[in-house]
Amino acid sequence: MNSSASFHHSDAYRAWLGYRRIAPGERYNQYELYSSIVISEQDDRIHAAATELSRGIEGLLGQPAPLSDYRNGDACIALGTFGHSAAIDEVFQDEALAKIGPEGYVIRTNSTLRCIAIGASSSAGIVYGVFHLLRLLALGIDVEALDIAENPVNRLRMINQWDNMDGSVERGYAGRSIFFADNRITWDSERIRDYARLLASSGVNAISINNVNVHRVESKLVTTQFLPDVAKLADIFRLYGIRLFLSVNYASPLEVGGLSTADPLDTTVREWWRTQVAEVYAAIPDFGGLLVKADSENRPGPFTYGRDHADGSNMLAEALKPYGGVVIWRCFVYNCKQDWRDRKTDRARAAYDHFKPLDGKFMDNVILQVKNGPIDFQVREPVSPLFGAMEATNQMIEFQITQEYTGQQRHVCYLVPQWKEVLEFDTLIKGDGSSVKRVVDGSFHGNAHSGFAAVSNIGDDENWTGHLLAQANLYGYGRLAWNPELSAEAIAEEWIRLSFGGDEQLVHTIRDILMSSWGIYESYTAPLGIGFMVNPDHHYGPNVDGYEYSMWGTYHFADCHGIGVDRTKATGTGYTAQYAGANMEQYDSPANCPDELLLFFHHVPYTHRLQSGKTVIQSIYDTHFEGAERAEGLKASWELLEGKMDRELHRQVADRLAEQATHAREWRDQINTYFYRKSGIVDQAGRLIY
Amino acid sequence: MNSSASFHHSDAYRAWLGYRRIAPGERYNQYELYSSIVISEQDDRIHAAATELSRGIEGLLGQPAPLSDYRNGDACIALGTFGHSAAIDEVFQDEALAKIGPEGYVIRTNSTLRCIAIGASSSAGIVYGVFHLLRLLALGIDVEALDIAENPVNRLRMINQWDNMDGSVERGYAGRSIFFADNRITWDSERIRDYARLLASSGVNAISINNVNVHRVESKLVTTQFLPDVAKLADIFRLYGIRLFLSVNYASPLEVGGLSTADPLDTTVREWWRTQVAEVYAAIPDFGGLLVKADSENRPGPFTYGRDHADGSNMLAEALKPYGGVVIWRCFVYNCKQDWRDRKTDRARAAYDHFKPLDGKFMDNVILQVKNGPIDFQVREPVSPLFGAMEATNQMIEFQITQEYTGQQRHVCYLVPQWKEVLEFDTLIKGDGSSVKRVVDGSFHGNAHSGFAAVSNIGDDENWTGHLLAQANLYGYGRLAWNPELSAEAIAEEWIRLSFGGDEQLVHTIRDILMSSWGIYESYTAPLGIGFMVNPDHHYGPNVDGYEYSMWGTYHFADCHGIGVDRTKATGTGYTAQYAGANMEQYDSPANCPDELLLFFHHVPYTHRLQSGKTVIQSIYDTHFEGAERAEGLKASWELLEGKMDRELHRQVADRLAEQATHAREWRDQINTYFYRKSGIVDQAGRLIY
Repeated sequence: MNSSASFHHSDAYRAWLGYRRIAPGERYNQYELYSSIVISEQDDRIHAAATELSRGIEGLLGQPAPLSDYRNGDACIALGTFGHSAAIDEVFQDEALAKIGPEGYVIRTNSTLRCIAIGASSSAGIVYGVFHLLRLLALGIDVEALDIAENPVNRLRMINQWDNMDGSVERGYAGRSIFFADNRITWDSERIRDYARLLASSGVNAISINNVNVHRVESKLVTTQFLPDVAKLADIFRLYGIRLFLSVNYASPLEVGGLSTADPLDTTVREWWRTQVAEVYAAIPDFGGLLVKADSENRPGPFTYGRDHADGSNMLAEALKPYGGVVIWRCFVYNCKQDWRDRKTDRARAAYDHFKPLDGKFMDNVILQVKNGPIDFQVREPVSPLFGAMEATNQMIEFQITQEYTGQQRHVCYLVPQWKEVLEFDTLIKGDGSSVKRVVDGSFHGNAHSGFAAVSNIGDDENWTGHLLAQANLYGYGRLAWNPELSAEAIAEEWIRLSFGGDEQLVHTIRDILMSSWGIYESYTAPLGIGFMVNPDHHYGPNVDGYEYSMWGTYHFADCHGIGVDRTKATGTGYTAQYAGANMEQYDSPANCPDELLLFFHHVPYTHRLQSGKTVIQSIYDTHFEGAERAEGLKASWELLEGKMDRELHRQVADRLAEQATHAREWRDQINTYFYRKSGIVDQAGRLIY
Repeated sequence: MNSSASFHHSDAYRAWLGYRRIAPGERYNQYELYSSIVISEQDDRIHAAATELSRGIEGLLGQPAPLSDYRNGDACIALGTFGHSAAIDEVFQDEALAKIGPEGYVIRTNSTLRCIAIGASSSAGIVYGVFHLLRLLALGIDVEALDIAENPVNRLRMINQWDNMDGSVERGYAGRSIFFADNRITWDSERIRDYARLLASSGVNAISINNVNVHRVESKLVTTQFLPDVAKLADIFRLYGIRLFLSVNYASPLEVGGLSTADPLDTTVREWWRTQVAEVYAAIPDFGGLLVKADSENRPGPFTYGRDHADGSNMLAEALKPYGGVVIWRCFVYNCKQDWRDRKTDRARAAYDHFKPLDGKFMDNVILQVKNGPIDFQVREPVSPLFGAMEATNQMIEFQITQEYTGQQRHVCYLVPQWKEVLEFDTLIKGDGSSVKRVVDGSFHGNAHSGFAAVSNIGDDENWTGHLLAQANLYGYGRLAWNPELSAEAIAEEWIRLSFGGDEQLVHTIRDILMSSWGIYESYTAPLGIGFMVNPDHHYGPNVDGYEYSMWGTYHFADCHGIGVDRTKATGTGYTAQYAGANMEQYDSPANCPDELLLFFHHVPYTHRLQSGKTVIQSIYDTHFEGAERAEGLKASWELLEGKMDRELHRQVADRLAEQATHAREWRDQINTYFYRKSGIVDQAGRLIY
């Protein structure tokens, strides 16, 4: 693809950085005033920010925004770091500087100087500030009296690509990898740059480019065979303030290094990693660090050598320490060779049981990456009890933007409301106010490192995410990582206006679709928090018994009398005891447990009455009939938008919503039929069940 | 592999052609007398037969058997076709000749001439006669007064390879293809020759070398691109009396020929096939014909053009007719996009419904290949009602030697008893005596063509079949195709003695293992004829609901009250009406239907009492507990044979039986748990169900 191709890109490709022309009028006239751009630093990143600003203004106003020297009195947008720019230093005094951290920025309109100034303590702050200003312009906000100071709430705001070097993407639903093909790094630098722009504009500052399941060829990414190419990728991301990470194979000393062990306490192993890390930093001086899936789902790890996760991660952390790098160690560790006959082993317990006892043993540049729930990115799970439970250990949260269990970008499922619920969840570990978001932003235990990670949902599809509406999840993830206080509605509305323009009917319609989508998906799939009623391996589509007799530890135990997993202290697996105080008490009691999690925590008869007043079985029937109907309703809502957007954009989404409606009926019928056949209890409303 | 490699082959590779040394003694002395071989014809096939005889005798006696000229009074084994050999014509008079058909032979010991003479009307008969004599010698039979005349009962005795040109084997459980790799024909001619020897020695006379699912590259096997190599394969098989067939893609005129249609009534299409067939016969003058899977499981066919199977097959038959070739047209045609909600459509009906109305419309060189049962090679199915139902149409039967649904050569499952039951089944179409074997041998309706086909179970594993005991199925298939009157026990015993020698404890033990194996496999897998409770796609291992909500038409309809498919006339799909007379009445009645097929024909409560006196549910529990126990017993039986055979052979089978026992417990527990959870009815014996 040549570098001028961007002019031919579709609206879908440009995503929320479409910079659509604004109509003539008051705002247009206001913005036009500020259409020259002033920078006074020679810095690639500031130059990239200025280029973005120029490009954005050209899109919005239809005329170029020239770079010019600062002349007092000429209206302009000035960008610069404190102490290096006359315009910036004229606008901002110490009081502004004091508010701003390493990635923060201030934006202020100075009417005297006729200038919008974006100041920051680092060039990265300038990038974020520029994207902020562009967002305001694209949204048509009055900029006459801006006075904004922003810092990211979370230090690490990371994307995990699950891309393999053969070009496939594990759990990818939007085409092939944009990073790899044929066991090489690909070189579509424009596409990668555009991805970096999308990520930076939403607030992301870190990316691991290869799958956490690291196969033979990817194990060599940390070697000189691939480092020159990896460094070129890092160069692109660096322009936008994004640091590059690599996933590594714990067995690399054996598989790549030719050693006879990967024991973390072995001196030759430690030396091998030190050498590799030195080579990485020689190629990429601001390299972020290593992401590790070890002793998990058949991946190698320290267990092989009788060592624990602390031994394993600290060994890598020691090698990274001199360079300021971190080890991100995933806590997705459980027995994946479970016997389905065994009701005592509980996969939900596993992360806590494995890691909690190691609290305090990890070096300060190790971060434990904990999935939001105890199982695996289901549409509904309780929050992982590991959050906050390790006072002396860095933790970050892992979300899944890619919709592995939530419709695989064939179904619309706006996940920000789910993530919000997780972040707002109060762990009660130190009483009220022990929310997950405070654990994750590091303030709860005062951690040196913490933050967000999430599995990306993009591929080389023209529209990045397969389902156009899934772009909202990528955007929303970044925005939430930057500021978890933003509401899911506000993020949705922002994304809609940036992507489709500001027609009010359109905004309301799409916002309603997004905001209802998670609930709809939940209602026609696995009921009441039970989860995992999907086809094995690929995880798409209903299969109630798909995992029931498997070794994966994900069972529902449905019989002709009832269903659910008893995780109580008295009669179950005792998982509820991993929660603190009132959370534990609430989950432990079938009467008090929230309906939507009842079957996650309790095995109950089909005739058990929920807090909603319905029986379990009637609730299953009702939610599934309603869910499929509401999915049909999404299709109808979208039809109202025909003519309000580019025909191709409209068609893309219409096609997916039609497929979703059909597939929702399949879910409805399979789930209802399964439970009707199993329970023998008829639907009170007498609807058709097979 | 060089041609001397055979000396290094293992016992497992040599299979039933091991020609083990016989002990000194009476038989040895008797056989030693006849150790020179006389032939008087220059014929490659007779030469191959003589070479086999010489090799066999050398193995049995430990000394070479030279070829020599016939001299009256010298003890010898003389081989020859009638009218071309002095020795043969001296031994056999017209009365012997009259008994012998094109592939038959006579074997007679003439004490005056001190000669064992093998006479035939064709060189192929000589091959079969030689293998017969070698079998007698290997079994230690007295040959002083032989007087044997044999003709094959079935004219076509065919093997279908489901080999793909990429080297994979569809439903293959014994390694990769011995015919293809990397989209070329491979050239391990020794291995192919050894396969031809194994096939010919059991009686097989035809082979289709490529999968009935014909992909793009295999579509070119009928073109000059591949025909020179195909012809070399045909040369090898021809030496052993085996004619080569090819599977073709019905869409070849489009995909290979570049035409815009594959309509069988289109003149350019007909001309294209005539040209291809002419090219095939130019390369392979005795080419057997074409095997076609059309309009089946998404394969193209005449339906695309609004034509029927008669139009489709006759078009090919016309092209083949001038050369004496035949079209073998598979009847495995059904709706594979069924809606599981639809209980009226019945896959079991499909073959009959599709083909019966076309009776009389097929050319006389078309043969319909009908699977033994109406569904798909399950461990238990009724016999297809299509057999004998088409008075004016050639039919042949299709078995599956490869154990797709019967343990995939991880479990032992000797299938000859199953095939015998099918062959002995009396269709009653013209009253008593309308057995399937008579339909298949052509005598029932006086067909020009008929016979057996079966899907091979071999691959490039050293022992051919993965499970050593699965060799018995390959051997047994050929023997049964030659003579369906042979008993399963006799075939088993013959195979054991040829493969392992004649130790009586060994023979009895292995015979008992083989003879009980089908019943054991049936008892711990899907109960009472219901079938298809397997994992989708690969079909290995239990999964009760694996196909329950699929589009494949294979459902059990289990609910909390009962299970089974109602195929009766009054309330079901009416499939039972496809059977004649008393068969129809028996199957239509839940009281009279054989227990082992009850759930195939009827939906009954778990409390329904079987003819055995047990309830359905108790029978499920009992058979599954017993089946797993009996699988364990197979392991124990085999252990007794340690020391009675080559250690490696023993270990191979011991390993598989250990895996089977473990896996049988998995079947037991999943099936029992499923039905216990669903029915809520406890096991009367109080055994552990989960």
